[in-house]
Amino acid sequence: MAKDKPTRPKARTVRGFRDRAAGELMAERRMLETIRGVYDSYGFDGLETPFIEYTDALGKFLPDVDRPNAGVFSFRDDDEQWVSLRYDLTAPLARYVAENYQDLPKPFRRYQIGTVFRNDKPGPGRYREFIQCDADTVGTSAPAADAEMAMMFADTLEALGLKRGDYAVKLNSRKLLDGVLEAAGLPITGSDEVLARRGIVMRTMDKLDRIGVDGVRALLGKGRKDESGDFAKGAELSNEQIDRIVSFIAPAAGANSLESQLALVAQAVEGSETGKAGVANVAEIMQLVTGSGYEGTRVHLDTGIVRGLDYYTGAVFEAQLTFPVQNEDGQTVVFGSVGGGGRYDDLVARFTGQQVPAVGFSIGVSRLLTALQLRKATTTETVPLVVVTVFDKKDPAPAFVLVRELRAAGIRAEAYVGNGKMGDQLKYADKRGAAIAVIEGPDERAKGELQLKDLALGTELAKSVESRADWVGERKAQLTISRSGLVDEVRAMLTRKA
Amino acid sequence: MAKDKPTRPKARTVRGFRDRAAGELMAERRMLETIRGVYDSYGFDGLETPFIEYTDALGKFLPDVDRPNAGVFSFRDDDEQWVSLRYDLTAPLARYVAENYQDLPKPFRRYQIGTVFRNDKPGPGRYREFIQCDADTVGTSAPAADAEMAMMFADTLEALGLKRGDYAVKLNSRKLLDGVLEAAGLPITGSDEVLARRGIVMRTMDKLDRIGVDGVRALLGKGRKDESGDFAKGAELSNEQIDRIVSFIAPAAGANSLESQLALVAQAVEGSETGKAGVANVAEIMQLVTGSGYEGTRVHLDTGIVRGLDYYTGAVFEAQLTFPVQNEDGQTVVFGSVGGGGRYDDLVARFTGQQVPAVGFSIGVSRLLTALQLRKATTTETVPLVVVTVFDKKDPAPAFVLVRELRAAGIRAEAYVGNGKMGDQLKYADKRGAAIAVIEGPDERAKGELQLKDLALGTELAKSVESRADWVGERKAQLTISRSGLVDEVRAMLTRKA
Repeated sequence: MAKDKPTRPKARTVRGFRDRAAGELMAERRMLETIRGVYDSYGFDGLETPFIEYTDALGKFLPDVDRPNAGVFSFRDDDEQWVSLRYDLTAPLARYVAENYQDLPKPFRRYQIGTVFRNDKPGPGRYREFIQCDADTVGTSAPAADAEMAMMFADTLEALGLKRGDYAVKLNSRKLLDGVLEAAGLPITGSDEVLARRGIVMRTMDKLDRIGVDGVRALLGKGRKDESGDFAKGAELSNEQIDRIVSFIAPAAGANSLESQLALVAQAVEGSETGKAGVANVAEIMQLVTGSGYEGTRVHLDTGIVRGLDYYTGAVFEAQLTFPVQNEDGQTVVFGSVGGGGRYDDLVARFTGQQVPAVGFSIGVSRLLTALQLRKATTTETVPLVVVTVFDKKDPAPAFVLVRELRAAGIRAEAYVGNGKMGDQLKYADKRGAAIAVIEGPDERAKGELQLKDLALGTELAKSVESRADWVGERKAQLTISRSGLVDEVRAMLTRKA
Repeated sequence: MAKDKPTRPKARTVRGFRDRAAGELMAERRMLETIRGVYDSYGFDGLETPFIEYTDALGKFLPDVDRPNAGVFSFRDDDEQWVSLRYDLTAPLARYVAENYQDLPKPFRRYQIGTVFRNDKPGPGRYREFIQCDADTVGTSAPAADAEMAMMFADTLEALGLKRGDYAVKLNSRKLLDGVLEAAGLPITGSDEVLARRGIVMRTMDKLDRIGVDGVRALLGKGRKDESGDFAKGAELSNEQIDRIVSFIAPAAGANSLESQLALVAQAVEGSETGKAGVANVAEIMQLVTGSGYEGTRVHLDTGIVRGLDYYTGAVFEAQLTFPVQNEDGQTVVFGSVGGGGRYDDLVARFTGQQVPAVGFSIGVSRLLTALQLRKATTTETVPLVVVTVFDKKDPAPAFVLVRELRAAGIRAEAYVGNGKMGDQLKYADKRGAAIAVIEGPDERAKGELQLKDLALGTELAKSVESRADWVGERKAQLTISRSGLVDEVRAMLTRKA
């Protein structure tokens, strides 16, 4: 009995992974082609690194500093060395640059579009496999490289159909953040206790969007009750420290010009050399942005941007979509971040000991696609399909000749290859969402004719015959045409339907 | 000391994995777009399944039956369940169909292009990560589905630029193979000893290309010395058995028409019901192929085709490129297989117990790309790049304005964002393989002019000035143009160079 009925595996995807069907893939492919087109036009070259890297070469640079051991799929190769699935495209780039440094043009400019993996707890809309789209310039510390990244990102969003004002690329600098913390008595080279507190403060600053200024003040001080009612202990900073930090990440309204912004920032970082260098650097970047005509709604300084990654050393960017959407709780919020990046000057030095300055940008493909769909800047529209039915399944060749003619004319067409009768074939065509079915029975063949069936129209007519009577006068659900008119008549019917 | 000098990881790819640069990627992308275009035009829909599947859902259907436990990268998920990286696109399709059977149109027609992983020993040109490109029709046993696969593969190769006669899609049937073995006394439901011998025989048949008819005869009989001098034990078949099998896989010359081929095959499988069914099935498939005008050089019956996969149950295909190439030892051989497939009616039943007939085709992307490059049917040619140099790096904005004008005109252009001086910038442009460098120094700016430098020409001129004197009269390495003529002059220079 046990031998006759073996245990069957259950057909299911792994937790946090999913299948993706034609509509989504087509919209995504169009989007990625546009992005790639912009990166190519800027002179960036494509590169593809492997999905699997040695774990030590990959390192561990994930935003979730609270769980430093999670996040990566790792296993032993058959020679017992640890390998990992790539969790982003930046760590493999650092490995690639270190390995090929001598042979690369400097600066080295590459883009990579690829799937990355996170061994995280999956949740609704949160997958363990997703596509990133990165561009990086490696081997130069020039502010022009930072400015170019911000402007290229703005160009990319507009090439995708987003309107000016629907998005903003926001610039900040890790040097400014370090500067204000240093000025507030939390230097980067402090004691372990200071460093720990510094970490809490930075994570708190990053929560400004979610918990507001009052929430940030509370968390920088004694602490606060979070949404679940639990009390989160604060960083125990003094009021003076808190004031300085808050004046930096959430400056009072009014400071809208770049000059007044820079003046406020200079005040917040006063006394920190790092902060001073940050002000000069941001000013240089924004000078080029302004000189190229991108300043304002497209690219601007926003000292509220933190970016969670530890490895940033200079400019940080975030691209935000500013139009309103409804969140899961029905509240109206702005769409928010679709990508970000920054300058990281130490990643290659992990391998070589030599600092190689670099700056990059990463787009979260699925969030951006969702945004474009909300903005109707892309469609999941598929190319219309024509299904040619097969009357005599012992002789399907005539149907195959018909589809070849249609394809040669650039029309997507298939001959029915299943075992079903005519009714099943028309149901199949409906289920496929086909636009037209072509029928050639023995009568039609004898007369040199074909039947074209307008499928969507047929479905509509069946629903409500009377109310559409006039309209039907012009658009018939079924049409008899001459065999030789196949391509023209199908094309005409597709045009009428469009 | 240990603290000051931490051990640095070595920058290297994992054994059997590799980085791929822009030239190869661009050629591959063009190829895949063409393939996708053909599949789309045939009415196949895209599908993407995850890279990771539950190990039990994936099963193990690899060609290498000699090492049934190798071939798959597997590891435990954090809930202790075993998961694997997909090793092909067919096993995930079976899982997908079983999971979504009720909702799918029948037949279900999908294509998938994606990276798969093999945990094999790497070797020269043999990687553990590569791209496959599959099309499958699931849910019909009609021979029309098999015939369509063969014809679509022929159309795909021609769409890629291969000439008729450069390739052949070869058809055989697992039913014919089973039939001839049954007729030779090696039935599929024999004793363990018969089954083992049957396995050896099938693998021997698959070696016909490499070891020739005499080699096959020897291995089916007593055995033979292989290339290394080791003696490989044979299957110990009788001469009568061997004659029958060899007459099937390597019929004597002369049987060129389909009718005479079918007659010979019918003789070879005489006495086997399975074989008889195979003859009828192959005849039906070839009838449609002939009726659609594909018979002959494009698609034909070849009983020498075996295909190693265990799961095939009916038609098997192999697409071979027939033009000569030099192999590693300098011998002239035909290029050989670039893809294959067949009918597999039992893969979905693993999950559901219900047989779901299916037929599919898989292209090995990297081999096909190599073939196209050898045939010059594709190029690795990249889009020409213009590098705009930056004279005053404190003010790069004018260079950024120039590249924007070029890009707006559809020309690939970048402003130099490194820290180097003019000489370094021109060296950079050379190393990038840029076509043109644009220079705007203070003199040029004052006069409203620009310098265009023809880079490849400059390099050539430096090599041999005299012999090219006449030519240079018309084509100068460096050209002064007016600022307002940027786009036109760059375009004209690119046209002259092309």
